[in-house]
Amino acid sequence: MKNNKTPGTDTPKTQDGAYRPGLEGVICNRSSISYIDGEKGTLEYRGINIADLTEHSNFEECVYLLLYSHLPSERELNQFKTFLAKSRHLSTPIREAITRFPVGMHPIIALQTATALFQGEDFYADDVSSSTHNMRRAISIISKIPTILAAFDRHRNGEEPIPPRSQYTHAENLLYMLTGSPPKPEQARVFDKSLILHLEHTMNASTFTTRVIGSTQASIYSAISGAIGALSGSLHGGANEKVIRMLYSIGHQDNVEPFVEEKLGSGSKIMGIGHRIYKIKDPRATILQNFIPKLLETTSGEEIKTLYKIAIKLEEIVNKNLGHKNLYPNVDFYSGIVYECLGIPSDLFTSIFAIARIVGWSAHWLEQVNANRIFRPTQQYIGDHNRQYISLDER
Amino acid sequence: MKNNKTPGTDTPKTQDGAYRPGLEGVICNRSSISYIDGEKGTLEYRGINIADLTEHSNFEECVYLLLYSHLPSERELNQFKTFLAKSRHLSTPIREAITRFPVGMHPIIALQTATALFQGEDFYADDVSSSTHNMRRAISIISKIPTILAAFDRHRNGEEPIPPRSQYTHAENLLYMLTGSPPKPEQARVFDKSLILHLEHTMNASTFTTRVIGSTQASIYSAISGAIGALSGSLHGGANEKVIRMLYSIGHQDNVEPFVEEKLGSGSKIMGIGHRIYKIKDPRATILQNFIPKLLETTSGEEIKTLYKIAIKLEEIVNKNLGHKNLYPNVDFYSGIVYECLGIPSDLFTSIFAIARIVGWSAHWLEQVNANRIFRPTQQYIGDHNRQYISLDER
Repeated sequence: MKNNKTPGTDTPKTQDGAYRPGLEGVICNRSSISYIDGEKGTLEYRGINIADLTEHSNFEECVYLLLYSHLPSERELNQFKTFLAKSRHLSTPIREAITRFPVGMHPIIALQTATALFQGEDFYADDVSSSTHNMRRAISIISKIPTILAAFDRHRNGEEPIPPRSQYTHAENLLYMLTGSPPKPEQARVFDKSLILHLEHTMNASTFTTRVIGSTQASIYSAISGAIGALSGSLHGGANEKVIRMLYSIGHQDNVEPFVEEKLGSGSKIMGIGHRIYKIKDPRATILQNFIPKLLETTSGEEIKTLYKIAIKLEEIVNKNLGHKNLYPNVDFYSGIVYECLGIPSDLFTSIFAIARIVGWSAHWLEQVNANRIFRPTQQYIGDHNRQYISLDER
Repeated sequence: MKNNKTPGTDTPKTQDGAYRPGLEGVICNRSSISYIDGEKGTLEYRGINIADLTEHSNFEECVYLLLYSHLPSERELNQFKTFLAKSRHLSTPIREAITRFPVGMHPIIALQTATALFQGEDFYADDVSSSTHNMRRAISIISKIPTILAAFDRHRNGEEPIPPRSQYTHAENLLYMLTGSPPKPEQARVFDKSLILHLEHTMNASTFTTRVIGSTQASIYSAISGAIGALSGSLHGGANEKVIRMLYSIGHQDNVEPFVEEKLGSGSKIMGIGHRIYKIKDPRATILQNFIPKLLETTSGEEIKTLYKIAIKLEEIVNKNLGHKNLYPNVDFYSGIVYECLGIPSDLFTSIFAIARIVGWSAHWLEQVNANRIFRPTQQYIGDHNRQYISLDER
């Protein structure tokens, strides 16, 4: 298992100018969207602790907060909710294009592809000079992306898409479009809060991608599409899917101890454990975990209850063995179990992540285009010089 | 007009660790693919000067050189050409998906979208551990991207796509698929060399995007799709299209002097002039310019001859006025005129750029996955802390 090497907060202690692979510790932008204190284990959106937000707020209000940087008044919130709900429908061309996507494609790539297609419906997409238009674009794409995911999931299963319902909240509507049934209140409540926990998380490869593409003044559709592509990578999104597979493969809580011993012995990673910034337990993991006991009551499956027992046992053993190395469960450790309880297929987990994180990407895109400088770093050349061109017959 | 602020080569002189907007001067990777000496005005691919390559080599050979880092033997080259030519066809699902793309979409976004779709046809796209598979993916996508562009261009014009012909070279085949006529030899020759000049150019926003997305172990399709998105931005690709519009708007060579005076007076930029790295004339501009007189003989249009006269005059006036500021024509200054001579619609210029640059992106993707570290820079937080959550009725 690899130890974290980055400092405990996301503001670096030193920056000596040496080449840092992966730009680790290099400041790439200034931002007021979110902040992590890795020592204390806290995450703030626009300065407000996410523990308070998941306790008291809801998805729609948190999206408003991240995009506009203040909590909405009642009137602002109602207007915002209406716009978000009314924008859910896809146009016929986009819906038809989705029905032509290869069914074997990973759902996250369907999201990447369809997001780029929206450029075709926004005639002025290449003009990012209007803050009003930019905000409207962001809200529209946040609203539509669950409809894309549900439409593609139905398409690959040979089923007709279920049209969105504007009377539902964002979380309720997505569960409804995926399953075709009205969501149970407790499931919708937890899903809403789980989305809040995934909205934004400072600088990471996908958020950075949004800013790099956005810095060329490409459209928001190109920037978000690229970010989804980055999230699709197995080193970035997708960890929650792997956690679930790991828990299934362990099979029973009695197998946890030998599993951990084997992992430690071979020096390999335990999925969902450790985070480059948090030095104590990821606050999002703590919050998610607290949802699970009540959520389990909404499902009849015994298998998922076993998974949860395995996870609890795994955390206990890991704490005992690795706590001194600052290795604790991260958000992915419990989010997969939550999604399993909600009946979401595991190959949609990364896409669910994208449906939440698109809010953070949008906020970063707005911040980037508002004070833009194109990203053009440099490289160190390590090849030869002055090689001669030798003609084909002399090679 | 803004002066260049970066050093004359792409290896920075100093790196003091301060926050650099746009990561200017920050080393983001090590590479042996290409090298620019901005003082001398030279560009090398794998150590070989592009002046030699455009003089003696051809597109297929240069692609081989960039991907494999050596010039091919006759046998290697023949095998490579065959694979590149045989891979041009699109599958029925991809062709059908393209016929569903909104016709008003910019062609470069059609490329971004369709490139991501290829993931659906590569069942192991998320496994980037095999160098052999990775190379095959790169060659296949380089081969297919002109077919996508031509298919979309025909689709938006309400026409059936023209299937690729494997007996043509890459350059000949693209001209053929766009126009439906066998290309004139001089036009194919210049187009081939013009593609060579655009294959690769060290670190820039789109190449950087390829590496950032690729660093998450996302598929090559996701990485290249994102790079195309970055290229679509008006601050990155698209300058050659703008040069042509500028030359048309000047209208006559007698209008050049007042045009430059007005631009200088208002402190605004002249399209196609100046480059952040080159301190003298961009070597690619010099080479392209030399092609034009002979190429003009292949076209009957008087308008395009006028455009060329305007360009020559503009370069002369700019040299006189701005030469002391190291502001000279860059590659985009003459490439648009070349494409106009070839009968390519101006809104395809950025896509033609992508069709060449995908080779450099592929080489960088291969280099990145071969010695990977995920890009996760940091940010400087400039917002508030410890803001209280105020409930809706108290706001």
